[in-house]
Amino acid sequence: MTGLVSYERRGPLGLIRLERPDALNALTHEMIADVELFARAAERDADVLAICITGAGRGFCAGLDISVLAAQTGAEGVPTLNEAEPRPALFSFLLDISKPVIGAINGVGAGGGFVLAMMCDLRFMAEEATLTTVFSRRGLIAEHATSWLLPRIVGLSRALDLLWSSRRIDAAEAYRVGFADRVVPADRLLDAVEAYVADMAATVSPRALAVMKAQVHRDVGRPFAESVAETHHHMIAALRSADAGEGARSFVERRPPRFAAWTGEDK
Amino acid sequence: MTGLVSYERRGPLGLIRLERPDALNALTHEMIADVELFARAAERDADVLAICITGAGRGFCAGLDISVLAAQTGAEGVPTLNEAEPRPALFSFLLDISKPVIGAINGVGAGGGFVLAMMCDLRFMAEEATLTTVFSRRGLIAEHATSWLLPRIVGLSRALDLLWSSRRIDAAEAYRVGFADRVVPADRLLDAVEAYVADMAATVSPRALAVMKAQVHRDVGRPFAESVAETHHHMIAALRSADAGEGARSFVERRPPRFAAWTGEDK
Amino acid sequence: MTGLVSYERRGPLGLIRLERPDALNALTHEMIADVELFARAAERDADVLAICITGAGRGFCAGLDISVLAAQTGAEGVPTLNEAEPRPALFSFLLDISKPVIGAINGVGAGGGFVLAMMCDLRFMAEEATLTTVFSRRGLIAEHATSWLLPRIVGLSRALDLLWSSRRIDAAEAYRVGFADRVVPADRLLDAVEAYVADMAATVSPRALAVMKAQVHRDVGRPFAESVAETHHHMIAALRSADAGEGARSFVERRPPRFAAWTGEDK
Repeated sequence: MTGLVSYERRGPLGLIRLERPDALNALTHEMIADVELFARAAERDADVLAICITGAGRGFCAGLDISVLAAQTGAEGVPTLNEAEPRPALFSFLLDISKPVIGAINGVGAGGGFVLAMMCDLRFMAEEATLTTVFSRRGLIAEHATSWLLPRIVGLSRALDLLWSSRRIDAAEAYRVGFADRVVPADRLLDAVEAYVADMAATVSPRALAVMKAQVHRDVGRPFAESVAETHHHMIAALRSADAGEGARSFVERRPPRFAAWTGEDK
Repeated sequence: MTGLVSYERRGPLGLIRLERPDALNALTHEMIADVELFARAAERDADVLAICITGAGRGFCAGLDISVLAAQTGAEGVPTLNEAEPRPALFSFLLDISKPVIGAINGVGAGGGFVLAMMCDLRFMAEEATLTTVFSRRGLIAEHATSWLLPRIVGLSRALDLLWSSRRIDAAEAYRVGFADRVVPADRLLDAVEAYVADMAATVSPRALAVMKAQVHRDVGRPFAESVAETHHHMIAALRSADAGEGARSFVERRPPRFAAWTGEDK
Repeated sequence: MTGLVSYERRGPLGLIRLERPDALNALTHEMIADVELFARAAERDADVLAICITGAGRGFCAGLDISVLAAQTGAEGVPTLNEAEPRPALFSFLLDISKPVIGAINGVGAGGGFVLAMMCDLRFMAEEATLTTVFSRRGLIAEHATSWLLPRIVGLSRALDLLWSSRRIDAAEAYRVGFADRVVPADRLLDAVEAYVADMAATVSPRALAVMKAQVHRDVGRPFAESVAETHHHMIAALRSADAGEGARSFVERRPPRFAAWTGEDK
């Protein structure tokens, strides 16, 4: 572990924080590995319902550290990227984590920091936070699935505008176009995430959250008929689960439900 | 027929109303069958241009009746769903009706009531109406194509937020995220739908509406090239149709068009 | 050339203008061919970073000229469209132009004019401009990929509403639903486009713009895994390109980048 990423459990929330505030939380490969390690541990933790990723200090994440970028492009612009290895998109492991991942965008997110925000399922933004894709200014392309995921979050034209211009958008605009799900004052950002997760912990099935995440992410890239067929199987399994019985009983008995914990083992 | 669903033709509008206000129009399987029967009859009716679905009383639809849910999950949470039968998504027959289906969301829509609203092509909402997905609170999954359709209406993050939290959204938020197409005072909700349909009845081709509905619903889940190829065939057929001639002539002659009725037989 | 379409280079912007103001810039097939010719020339021009399409006078484009429509539908509504030839969607050649294409919607866009606006990658709209699909009023269908592209820009319900009703939407509504990317006073419309392009010319890689456009347009109709695999190859190529080296070096040296020109030859 690098010590540059921290993990803390706050009730049902597993909080991952980038801890390199003097560099606006710019990422090394080792820090990314830490994020994955913490996220997978939180997935296995029965007491964690959802995961939050945020940054220490005034920035969220400035993207890949300049030392990483320099190594990639080399002195003469020669890449050192290992071409043989099929490399999944940066932070795409978050899409596989079978618990909600909420980005708490506390300050500027740029490049890889934009990707990190995008790979979160939901984004809560501080009023002062801003985001920028940056790739076009570095002579790069729409990296790390931004060309696939961004249009499905904000629509086709808006995605092209953000990718092409690398212009900085503020929280209000991010909210307007559907990239930010909530905008709150910076000093209440984590409170808002905690309240959202506490409410879910008191009312919804952790197993349901896991299945829904897988459903939505798969369905967004396939035809209707395939989705409906698979959903039928999910429905059968859900109705057989203890959670469906508890959901119905607690509803009839007008009491809070007690759903089973979820540790990702059945996914 | 159950007597718990009514049908009335108001000029070019076929109005289907859930008539179980004391139970917030909670649905039995028999009521769903009635909705389908009325919708298919309205499709065949040459005098009907579009169909509207609404609820009597202060609720739109509270979803599946508790007796249906209890039967599905059983006393010990054992499902009685027939697994052998490939079950299409609830209310997905509305997607096959070759006329516009407009939801007039007069009050709360929850669970199956949310699905009913979603399976309508357009949604007009009363200012006081609210919507909630509910599944996660019952230990269920993203049922009835919500995981496929909802992200295509409101975007990826917003769909996850609504499915996971089961939080109640009001009409203003539904409008902001693109789930509601119009928000009007409750006492003018049906007037607004009638005005919209009357305007179409006076100006547009019923055949065009049918082809467009099929095009959009198919295209949203397939590649560009497939869409363009099929659209070419639709264009040929449309240009050969009487409506295209009438459309051009009425335009040149600066008079209202007289398009042919549509009864779904040619689809 | 018809003389009814003009071309002018304004710094890094290639400006194509429909010059038939007395007919609200209604299109003949010859004018469409001129637009394509100018767009392809601008693509090959190393001094052009982006292309803008606008209309002279108070209209943007009233669609296909009535003489073209009359020929298509004939006196008895018989089409003269060549059925044997697979006809790409109108203006879909703009999607293949490997430079940003920005519509400057100065006034009304209708029918084929709506399609022209939609086939631009971004849309800047004058405050007074309005748009309407028109097809349903002519007995036609969702022509020219509108059924595929429009839902991906504005969402499913909104696309059906616009296609079915052929109602006229103003710039404010187009902006709200994500069809317009900017709304500006009419007399500053081209200034806004020029400023946007000038900013990109000073800061971003023309090669990046080209690759991003291809990525986004392909990814919007295919599964996640296919996108990620191809993006990996694009990343390798980008990191090998001179632009990536220049992007990293200019960033480190805190100076404006000097990226290579792009002429579409490598696409």
